[in-house]
Amino acid sequence: MAGIFVTFEGTDGSGKTSVINDLTARLDQMGLQDQYLVTREPGGSRISEAIREIILDQKNTEMDQKTEALLYAASRRQHLVEKILPALAAGKLVICDRFVDSSLAYQGAGRAIGVKQVAAINQFATDGLTPDLTFYFDLAPEIGLNRIKKNRQDEVNRLDEEQLSFYQLVRTEYLALADQEPERIKTIDATRSETEVAATVFSQLKKYLP
Amino acid sequence: MAGIFVTFEGTDGSGKTSVINDLTARLDQMGLQDQYLVTREPGGSRISEAIREIILDQKNTEMDQKTEALLYAASRRQHLVEKILPALAAGKLVICDRFVDSSLAYQGAGRAIGVKQVAAINQFATDGLTPDLTFYFDLAPEIGLNRIKKNRQDEVNRLDEEQLSFYQLVRTEYLALADQEPERIKTIDATRSETEVAATVFSQLKKYLP
Repeated sequence: MAGIFVTFEGTDGSGKTSVINDLTARLDQMGLQDQYLVTREPGGSRISEAIREIILDQKNTEMDQKTEALLYAASRRQHLVEKILPALAAGKLVICDRFVDSSLAYQGAGRAIGVKQVAAINQFATDGLTPDLTFYFDLAPEIGLNRIKKNRQDEVNRLDEEQLSFYQLVRTEYLALADQEPERIKTIDATRSETEVAATVFSQLKKYLP
Repeated sequence: MAGIFVTFEGTDGSGKTSVINDLTARLDQMGLQDQYLVTREPGGSRISEAIREIILDQKNTEMDQKTEALLYAASRRQHLVEKILPALAAGKLVICDRFVDSSLAYQGAGRAIGVKQVAAINQFATDGLTPDLTFYFDLAPEIGLNRIKKNRQDEVNRLDEEQLSFYQLVRTEYLALADQEPERIKTIDATRSETEVAATVFSQLKKYLP
């Protein structure tokens, strides 16, 4: 695999997406337009898109938690095969907003299915592909949830209705993962300003740039 | 689990469905209308149905084989939780046309993903629920495929376009599974007439009836 695979993780409202936007602006300024791919699941894969529609459909209140975890893994697999692997094979920097760690934290810990079990189905889905570098945006869930309420009142989906206690389990698992893999996962204090966070991320990412 | 869980397996055109219809007629004659459930995935689960639509959509030619295996597991999970488990909890005889063995044979062996890997994601999907009894309808794939061509020319879906060699791998795996679990899996010679096969199945099933 010639390229570099970088993922961004964190609870909702942690500011990942804004920082990724800042990052791509910097990469463009450096003239690297053709050397990176920014993506997130379902990422323009028709099949992943159809799977995500089932997951996020608010009518699907009867959805079992393991069904949901399997659907996330299926969507991830298809996005990986269609988008991420070809870009890595072409030597690109791939920046992905959420990947396996999200499922470990959200489904494994948050929904209490079990982190090991969710890791096993994601190992199947990804053939064990692990990011070279992961930025985990850490902040107290109540701060993130308040940011969400402020910014996108009209975009609430089924997942946004979860309770604070759920997000606390998610955060605890993210911190545990970062503790287990300090080389790969860099914990970023996401309570700071967007400008500060973006600068921190960029300085760490620079080592990997061509 | 108070009920009895019976599954039917075999390559396409092996006559499972006709025999299941014969069986339900016999159960009805015995006055057992309220004591059994005949089902097959997606089995009337709205979510399973939506997942199967993605799997069977002929437009989805770019679908990865592991994506497909994960979607089958997701559909199975939802059907299990919504339909099979409640019926078993109510003490019913549950007759299911295809279950995990189909994924082991079709995805694991036929599509060469690996039987063990497909078994692992299905273990996740089913919490390890294994049928009490499985009838495997064995016949040479060319006989089954010829029966299909004759009977349902207008119902061909993406899966029916697979090659004969694929079905031979599937059959080999079914026979291996029956060899590994002779107590659970009863191999039925499906080249015989429907009447003969139905009589054989019924005589074996009778032991489990109330």
